[in-house]
Amino acid sequence: MNEIVINAAGRPVPTDINGKPAIPYMGVAAYRPVGNKAAPPIRSCADYPLDGNKVVGSLREALERCELQDGAVVSTHHHFRNGDLVANRLWDTLADMGLKDLVWAPSASFACHAPLIKYLDNGVMHHIEGSMNGPLGEYCSAGKMRGLGVLRSHGGRFQAIQDGELKIDVAVIAAPTADPLGNANGVRGPSACGPLGFALADSLYARRVIVVTDNLEPFPCIPWQIQGQNVDYVVTLDKIGDPSQIVSGTTQVTRSPDRQLIAEMAARFVAETGIMRNGFSFQAGAGGITLSFALYLKDLMKKAGVKARFIRGGSNKYLVDMLREGFTDFILDGQTFDLDGVRSMHEDPRRHIDTSPFTSYNYHGKGNFASMIDVVMLGATEVDINFNANVVTHSDGALLHGIGGWQNCLFAKCTILAVPSFRDRIPVLVDKVTTLCGPGELIDVVATERGIAINPRRTDLIEAAKKCTVPIKPIEQLKAEVDRITGGPPDPVPLRDKIVAAVKWVDGTVIDSVRQSR
Amino acid sequence: MNEIVINAAGRPVPTDINGKPAIPYMGVAAYRPVGNKAAPPIRSCADYPLDGNKVVGSLREALERCELQDGAVVSTHHHFRNGDLVANRLWDTLADMGLKDLVWAPSASFACHAPLIKYLDNGVMHHIEGSMNGPLGEYCSAGKMRGLGVLRSHGGRFQAIQDGELKIDVAVIAAPTADPLGNANGVRGPSACGPLGFALADSLYARRVIVVTDNLEPFPCIPWQIQGQNVDYVVTLDKIGDPSQIVSGTTQVTRSPDRQLIAEMAARFVAETGIMRNGFSFQAGAGGITLSFALYLKDLMKKAGVKARFIRGGSNKYLVDMLREGFTDFILDGQTFDLDGVRSMHEDPRRHIDTSPFTSYNYHGKGNFASMIDVVMLGATEVDINFNANVVTHSDGALLHGIGGWQNCLFAKCTILAVPSFRDRIPVLVDKVTTLCGPGELIDVVATERGIAINPRRTDLIEAAKKCTVPIKPIEQLKAEVDRITGGPPDPVPLRDKIVAAVKWVDGTVIDSVRQSR
Repeated sequence: MNEIVINAAGRPVPTDINGKPAIPYMGVAAYRPVGNKAAPPIRSCADYPLDGNKVVGSLREALERCELQDGAVVSTHHHFRNGDLVANRLWDTLADMGLKDLVWAPSASFACHAPLIKYLDNGVMHHIEGSMNGPLGEYCSAGKMRGLGVLRSHGGRFQAIQDGELKIDVAVIAAPTADPLGNANGVRGPSACGPLGFALADSLYARRVIVVTDNLEPFPCIPWQIQGQNVDYVVTLDKIGDPSQIVSGTTQVTRSPDRQLIAEMAARFVAETGIMRNGFSFQAGAGGITLSFALYLKDLMKKAGVKARFIRGGSNKYLVDMLREGFTDFILDGQTFDLDGVRSMHEDPRRHIDTSPFTSYNYHGKGNFASMIDVVMLGATEVDINFNANVVTHSDGALLHGIGGWQNCLFAKCTILAVPSFRDRIPVLVDKVTTLCGPGELIDVVATERGIAINPRRTDLIEAAKKCTVPIKPIEQLKAEVDRITGGPPDPVPLRDKIVAAVKWVDGTVIDSVRQSR
Repeated sequence: MNEIVINAAGRPVPTDINGKPAIPYMGVAAYRPVGNKAAPPIRSCADYPLDGNKVVGSLREALERCELQDGAVVSTHHHFRNGDLVANRLWDTLADMGLKDLVWAPSASFACHAPLIKYLDNGVMHHIEGSMNGPLGEYCSAGKMRGLGVLRSHGGRFQAIQDGELKIDVAVIAAPTADPLGNANGVRGPSACGPLGFALADSLYARRVIVVTDNLEPFPCIPWQIQGQNVDYVVTLDKIGDPSQIVSGTTQVTRSPDRQLIAEMAARFVAETGIMRNGFSFQAGAGGITLSFALYLKDLMKKAGVKARFIRGGSNKYLVDMLREGFTDFILDGQTFDLDGVRSMHEDPRRHIDTSPFTSYNYHGKGNFASMIDVVMLGATEVDINFNANVVTHSDGALLHGIGGWQNCLFAKCTILAVPSFRDRIPVLVDKVTTLCGPGELIDVVATERGIAINPRRTDLIEAAKKCTVPIKPIEQLKAEVDRITGGPPDPVPLRDKIVAAVKWVDGTVIDSVRQSR
């Protein structure tokens, strides 16, 4: 019997997720893991081809050799974003094989995966543990999925696999370039996407690993972002990704004057508070405001003669320009958001550093990069007056986004949420977020077009901001201004009682749950 | 009670090694591992500095924080070979701390570690699990060590750590360059040595990991051959290695006419049997004959217009020249044998591929590079008429060498042992090797100055060699010629009953034991 308890953030969460016990969130850094890492079976070279050729005839043959049972967990990765051609083909094959009640553990799903809804309907797929963007999120949100959706950050997914919380039976890794041993990378080939870090945990811990490629080259395929010694089978397909869709739609600089204003104010804040200094670091990934922020910051760095030590990507053309023009020593790439980023990563391997959720985000390691970054710029669907933020649901409760690296990035020395104060007359600044994804104590600054609010906990930042030329206001004041414009806070959206998804914190505890929306 | 049994190779081996059960060798590929890989404790970023600065004041402070107990296992690595300045300092510190009965698990020990004998004598160190070259081998061989020495190949050491056979409490990794998070490499700095692959398993599986460096640089230290997320503490010392001694003494081309003849015949054999062809691969590491072989082979490749796909190093100036002159696409570096190799690895990172015992040698993985290589050139102290070979003891039974990657390399498509037929009037070709390290079925060719013997099992090679211009003789004939010169086989050297060391096969089973020599 699944019990609902109130966790340390005051949120109701299940103590059982899909038949396994779940630990309620205890606070940002309160929970200490016990026990040991997941331990995959010991293999022997005696059972693998000595000549290193693991290529088998078809994806079906590879899957059959993996001896999958009903209920098995199958993982894929989102390096191709909305241009992925492998996951749908994989699930067609699993359905053909007559398997039932499988769990899908993608690092993220996109609109291109909408055809998989039929497998949730007909019993081939039991539920999804992983980010659900768009149609699959809507499906889950509507209460139609048999199991509970489990939303994890990129770092949380690594943590869950590493800790043995999420046990993967077969990982299917779509790789833009691979060799017959299974060494693979994403930097070359017709479906080049940059790094393959989201598949790293799967390659290390899954019971069986299949690499699927449309660009098989002779051993050695380097860099080996995925190591062949972790791979069981290699499969070639005609086409694994649609390059035009691999590039995210969110990699255009915003043209909205309001959002440009947010970006500009945030950049000035970073410069004027002294965060921007020689050897500093920042993270600026996808999203129109973020990209715009990077451009404004670059101007300010130029004027001040400041050079960064490193920028955390996803790489894109704006960051690549900064690297080329000498504004940073390195880009640390977690993913790549456009073809300029992919190309630069291939051509400039000594200054593009390939990172993974292990190095960047895993909270159950001996440190990670996320907490070492001076300032990170993120978005949110909602922020409340206690600086708590939501990134997975909209104000109507609809589950439409994954967490990405967002939770992990909150550990930066200064986390700025850059948000318009309202969207479509619905306030983004609210009394209480619909879904809690990030605890307010980790969110230092909220930047809106109406001014910037600093978390009262950050007295040091409040002091440093005294010389700022951008308007600094208490978050309550910002919220009041928004409420006046939008006609007050909207009525609460009625949600049903049924819990459809659990939101994990970076340490594997449950920080909130998502209720059926309609 | 330790029972001695006869294993599948007819060798007496202990069933208990230092209090843990040991599995007798069952045949080259007969044993199948059971169970799961070692699972180190789950850690939390909550227990590590968020700014990534893990530098502590001294090696002693780091060791104290590791909470070592008497009997703990402490590991070090041999990237500095005979120029290591860390292991002695480490053991002085452990002795100062009053610890007793510790186990030392080095990837290899050298003559420079002779001062540690006092700790074996006085009880600080209980025994050594790892290669013992020179004085420590002599000490073990003389029956003075309290525990049993355990000799493993480079791949076998990875396998043992990965499989949980060898549990390391604290790994101390001497790194020529590191950052405060613990990212580390060997390609730069005053003690540059090339790769750090021998420490990889330790960094992944040890309970605690300390990086010691004399060249701390700001994050990010790339390439991160050792990843900071696996590291607990970072310590700086004035000097961690003596560069003049990091270069092995075995990286000079032989000047002996007999040995040059062996190298030349082996090279001609490889060319004339068709092993040398476009896209082929070979391994040629340290050792005078091997280096000479590479030079002869290069000449033959030049004449035939043949280019290799890859060469497995240790890199040295001869291989680096081949890379620069276009004789190979890549060098796969396991270690680096001279400063030309180190420099080239630093300057040409796209064609020098950093490998590790995991990728190259681990037999309990999903394949490795060793079995994919077309031809490998190795040495031996003894070879018998069944092609069995010895690499750890001399004919007098004295334990003087580690196994290195030797056992792992035997899996190449063609393994050539290049040996003088006798040394100091003692035959190298014998009826039965003193210590069995490599089973005859994996050794394809024995090349001596008197001609080449092909293993009768390799009928394909015998056929291909029919057009060879080098003398091909049955191994019995070679041995008879040697016996005539040396005056017949030497009298067997009397060894005592006491077993002083166990020799592991690549799968963790015990292939032979070493008896006290005097």
